[in-house]
Amino acid sequence: MVALLTDYGLQDAYVGTMKGAILSTNPSARIIDLTHDIPPQDVGEGSRVLAAALPYFPDGTVFVAVVDPGVGTDRAIVGVETDRHILLAPDNGLLGFLPRKRRIVRISDSKYFLKPVSNTFHGRDIFAPVAGRLAKGVDLARFGPAVKKVATLPEDARGRVVAIDRFGNAITNIPGDRVPRGARIKVGRTVVKSLSRTYGDVRKGAILALVGSSGYVEISVNQGSALKAGIHKGDTVTVTP
Amino acid sequence: MVALLTDYGLQDAYVGTMKGAILSTNPSARIIDLTHDIPPQDVGEGSRVLAAALPYFPDGTVFVAVVDPGVGTDRAIVGVETDRHILLAPDNGLLGFLPRKRRIVRISDSKYFLKPVSNTFHGRDIFAPVAGRLAKGVDLARFGPAVKKVATLPEDARGRVVAIDRFGNAITNIPGDRVPRGARIKVGRTVVKSLSRTYGDVRKGAILALVGSSGYVEISVNQGSALKAGIHKGDTVTVTP
Amino acid sequence: MVALLTDYGLQDAYVGTMKGAILSTNPSARIIDLTHDIPPQDVGEGSRVLAAALPYFPDGTVFVAVVDPGVGTDRAIVGVETDRHILLAPDNGLLGFLPRKRRIVRISDSKYFLKPVSNTFHGRDIFAPVAGRLAKGVDLARFGPAVKKVATLPEDARGRVVAIDRFGNAITNIPGDRVPRGARIKVGRTVVKSLSRTYGDVRKGAILALVGSSGYVEISVNQGSALKAGIHKGDTVTVTP
Repeated sequence: MVALLTDYGLQDAYVGTMKGAILSTNPSARIIDLTHDIPPQDVGEGSRVLAAALPYFPDGTVFVAVVDPGVGTDRAIVGVETDRHILLAPDNGLLGFLPRKRRIVRISDSKYFLKPVSNTFHGRDIFAPVAGRLAKGVDLARFGPAVKKVATLPEDARGRVVAIDRFGNAITNIPGDRVPRGARIKVGRTVVKSLSRTYGDVRKGAILALVGSSGYVEISVNQGSALKAGIHKGDTVTVTP
Repeated sequence: MVALLTDYGLQDAYVGTMKGAILSTNPSARIIDLTHDIPPQDVGEGSRVLAAALPYFPDGTVFVAVVDPGVGTDRAIVGVETDRHILLAPDNGLLGFLPRKRRIVRISDSKYFLKPVSNTFHGRDIFAPVAGRLAKGVDLARFGPAVKKVATLPEDARGRVVAIDRFGNAITNIPGDRVPRGARIKVGRTVVKSLSRTYGDVRKGAILALVGSSGYVEISVNQGSALKAGIHKGDTVTVTP
Repeated sequence: MVALLTDYGLQDAYVGTMKGAILSTNPSARIIDLTHDIPPQDVGEGSRVLAAALPYFPDGTVFVAVVDPGVGTDRAIVGVETDRHILLAPDNGLLGFLPRKRRIVRISDSKYFLKPVSNTFHGRDIFAPVAGRLAKGVDLARFGPAVKKVATLPEDARGRVVAIDRFGNAITNIPGDRVPRGARIKVGRTVVKSLSRTYGDVRKGAILALVGSSGYVEISVNQGSALKAGIHKGDTVTVTP
């Protein structure tokens, strides 16, 4: 099984072509789209979304994560094996969140790449044929030398809204288990009071905070949209015990 | 086979995560996307789209339909077996259109759910693991007690435009077989005359009415868009014999 | 394997319904989405995207390409067999780019179509059941008489921007191998200088031209968007040696 996360979008055929290239290497690969709508070149958001989804995928899944502003430069591509999965990504911080890494390999043996390798579409020319082979059971070590570590992203010390989802829910970077009972939550200039358990705990159209499905505090409007209520990506979020 | 219809959109990883959870329960499930772009929390539109697509899917398909404004409240989740399919949905009217229901079960046995069950993402925590098992052949009765009926939506007595598709076609709730030959069709203040057979029956850029692919009257513009011609969702549609 | 390219978009259930119809004919078909976001009724763009993706798909793939402004009229549907693939499309120029066609068949034997055939959704009623059978190995000749040629699109003599992708890259119709070393490239009134090798060859935010992953000249901004820099679909592109 190969799971894909990219910032390619679906309006072009980049994702479809990448799938063709995976299947050309491994016709029996099963391909699952995690998402292709990571904002263009937003490595931090790609990392956050990947981290939240990872636990729900079967053991042995090969993840291909391509958010790659440095494509065509000499940035590395890495393959990481964890206890449950294998992940491929540009070495730009996307995989920095992984807690336990059994092996890290720099993907560099070009005999496995499509020829010629374009300078702009490594998803098709490098990631796809390598992922197809990994899904077949080819050992990660075959693709290049072991390395010690992967790049990490700077930690964000400040509480803030990191994403707005399609329902207009504002997802923060504050883990739900760090919010004491009864603590007051403020986003931008809006006071949201303490954590609710679910949307229906407040009346229709009212704003609330709750612990979302990935374990982080979210600001929502019951049967409405926090975005339409004036909350935006980047807004500061504070918790006052 | 598992077919998915949701209002989750594709810009977040909700759908991808739900697929991961289905495959974690049943690695050989085949997953088909019906659509994920039902307008947020629009149960009526979800029901309409599901009803139109259902006949075209193979016998034995397990449908998972999640348009769920009441997620996290005590609204029920139901599984319905028909002569050809099994369908899972929140019991909010989404499945009210089903004509013949062989069995209805209230999905309630939490031993089949992911733990902990979040209050906001039952698609991942309840629908996915149940659907994965149903697709394996586990009997519907295993997931909870039989119930007598599902919720239904109020009928819309008034003719109106219920959706605009990507081409700008205005889809109405008027069954094509209730429009007499030669009847005059009016949408908002625009008179469309009688039913055409297909787009090409009028000149390029002209407005027309025809019976669309799901059997309902649609207002279209040949090689153009009824939406751009000023027709909107909610517009009143009248038929004068 | 069946690969789909359409202008249906994903916001409606047209694509999902078409997949249901393919799987009803051939439950073991594997379906890959190439893209469904070809601009509505833009046959030229469908043809360009299909041509670029084709080489990356496995031998034996059945392509279904539906950009079909003439649906419901008497335009033909053709099936083309090449050395590696089979392609189905309306005969409106979409397949005109194919260099070597071993066989061309006019798809006309209605015993393979869903009944009744709608006048607006041949993707579901004609393309899907035929594609399902082709993917099973049914011979193309079974679906209708051999014909000599397919429709072609007029060649575009003028250099121009033919598409803007999701990153804001402006894709031109100028093959990269026709641009001499050091030639000056101009798009609209913007002079881009000569071809770069990759994005990182210029500073962040600077405009550049390079040969994109499908072999055509593209105008880009390093870690930015050529679209936001004022370059649009249809802009004239000139190359001065």
